[in-house]
Amino acid sequence: MSDRDGDASAAGYLASKRVEILRSLEDIGRSRGDELEAVFPGGAGLMSRIVEYASRGKMLRGSLVHLGAALFGAPGAPGAAETAAAIELFQAGLLIHDDIMDRDDRRRGSPSVHASFVEEGRKAGAGDPRHFGESLATCAGDVCFFEALRALSAVATVLGPAASSLLALCGGELSVVGLAQMADCRFGDLPDEPSEEAIVAMYRGKTARYSFSLPLALGAALAGRDDVRAAIFAVGDLAGLAFQLRDDEIGIFGDPDDTGKISGSDIRENKKTVWRSRLLSRAGGQDKARLLSIYGNPSIGGPEIDLVRSLTSSLGVMAEITGWRNDLLIRAKALVSGLEACEERSRRTLVDLIDWLVSRTY
Amino acid sequence: MSDRDGDASAAGYLASKRVEILRSLEDIGRSRGDELEAVFPGGAGLMSRIVEYASRGKMLRGSLVHLGAALFGAPGAPGAAETAAAIELFQAGLLIHDDIMDRDDRRRGSPSVHASFVEEGRKAGAGDPRHFGESLATCAGDVCFFEALRALSAVATVLGPAASSLLALCGGELSVVGLAQMADCRFGDLPDEPSEEAIVAMYRGKTARYSFSLPLALGAALAGRDDVRAAIFAVGDLAGLAFQLRDDEIGIFGDPDDTGKISGSDIRENKKTVWRSRLLSRAGGQDKARLLSIYGNPSIGGPEIDLVRSLTSSLGVMAEITGWRNDLLIRAKALVSGLEACEERSRRTLVDLIDWLVSRTY
Repeated sequence: MSDRDGDASAAGYLASKRVEILRSLEDIGRSRGDELEAVFPGGAGLMSRIVEYASRGKMLRGSLVHLGAALFGAPGAPGAAETAAAIELFQAGLLIHDDIMDRDDRRRGSPSVHASFVEEGRKAGAGDPRHFGESLATCAGDVCFFEALRALSAVATVLGPAASSLLALCGGELSVVGLAQMADCRFGDLPDEPSEEAIVAMYRGKTARYSFSLPLALGAALAGRDDVRAAIFAVGDLAGLAFQLRDDEIGIFGDPDDTGKISGSDIRENKKTVWRSRLLSRAGGQDKARLLSIYGNPSIGGPEIDLVRSLTSSLGVMAEITGWRNDLLIRAKALVSGLEACEERSRRTLVDLIDWLVSRTY
Repeated sequence: MSDRDGDASAAGYLASKRVEILRSLEDIGRSRGDELEAVFPGGAGLMSRIVEYASRGKMLRGSLVHLGAALFGAPGAPGAAETAAAIELFQAGLLIHDDIMDRDDRRRGSPSVHASFVEEGRKAGAGDPRHFGESLATCAGDVCFFEALRALSAVATVLGPAASSLLALCGGELSVVGLAQMADCRFGDLPDEPSEEAIVAMYRGKTARYSFSLPLALGAALAGRDDVRAAIFAVGDLAGLAFQLRDDEIGIFGDPDDTGKISGSDIRENKKTVWRSRLLSRAGGQDKARLLSIYGNPSIGGPEIDLVRSLTSSLGVMAEITGWRNDLLIRAKALVSGLEACEERSRRTLVDLIDWLVSRTY
């Protein structure tokens, strides 16, 4: 799907933007940490904790803000650095809350924010260290959102009244993520089997619109191109769904050395993915019963995971979803090719990035 | 401290602004509910749930946005309605998260948001209905913040580049609330006794700056008066602390018929208030031991609450704190009188409002 040069270019773009965004976040951490500390003890510590947590990611969303601006003719647009930092702060807040909901005590090899507060509570003699830690982390996530709003304020200086549309877009799409996250909680905790349609709607809200379309559209808005918003959302819907189908595949087939997660993590956690949904609908009585006994069982080992893996092939699910994903990818790239008045190098980078994200192994 | 006319005027002002803000919130609930529902199922239901919850309050903060604009010569300033609605949405999000942290299953006579989601989880067969409900409510609180940001976007249209300062103020002060809320969680859950200084710093962050100064300063900013920000924060620091000391007094002496809470609720919950801190530091060995056995004991009754009440008098705490509060009130009103270039009727309303808030019984 993607050639080596493309991979290198996309990964290289992400890596260079990551450094830039990291620098913005560190500046925010220091200056806002000092300002908050002057008003309230603990402000500096909280800000550095937030920035450390935000720094663990690939910074895909922040990079897409920069790419959106460059694509529509305004590379390094004023306000892009602040918007990229803001979107990463929103993402940090969402992930801090997500970790609490999913009871994930680790995120990318280090303790999640609530886990480190649980530990603080344990040492300081909290009556219920888990509740204590989750409460403090809920606040820390909220502060991420508030600092993101503060960082976004720079956009008004740059765009004046036109900032209104950008801010409304950002708030509105974040609400969609909130709704999608609620759907995800329902899928995870309730016994009802969600329809494939409902799962895809959740993917669209949590991944496609928010992680692709929103940051690209924010970048375009900084370049004064609110007119391309619908076209960008059409690209994001296709590329984001392809990305998520790949993500699910990694959750089944991913190598722990690449992913940093245990083998078959999505199977153990009984994640209500499209893969699981198709497997269950294609499997006959005996296979179905075995799948239902494997999914959501945290004590399964290699043989059970291998069985699920082999069923994706024998039941045709692998072929179906790979075909679907390739189709989405082709359509997404065709839409990118059709975007009008784009800077050609950035268009190439976006195509490479989509290829890379949909074929990555971690 | 306040005459009947003053009370009537302050309460009347709040009541009339409350109707106005409620209308804005209902408009937002309908229009955003429709827009979100078109993108994600459940959007309309969530928005109406949020608006119902936000509507339960006095809408003090939103009213102070309006009063701040009027005070500095721009009553009904463009953007005031959206800013007032935004601040009430932020408040709703903070309270939804607060209810989870405090494990308050009711808020003003109705189930809190997480409690109603816990009930949904119980009916739908969630494995852990409490965790399920708290997770969904965390998301609902987040959506409040995102919709508040969206509502605030209108300010950029009105103020252009000057909106930047207003947005930065709003985000920055909300972060202070987040920090203060974290301090409050530590006071509540850890065995360490907080110093009076630490308690007052928490009051300043959670009440004075956020509930008084911020909304007034937002209103002033809408009137183009960023120059009065420091003066407003000086008023808020004094009036907000006086307000909180009164709030604590209501937590000890409040009549359940007025407050809607059980008698002596702060005593049962072992709230680390300035009152409790002073009582413990003034009490001799035997009284101190009795206070420590009463505070935080949920099964105490009238005699124990009466003992705490009588100790506030006999140990001189009532006289001390009443004196302190009166001093704060006098200084706050003197600062309001000294604010330059104010509209006189609004100045009167602000003085009345401070009097009313500091002498209210609920």
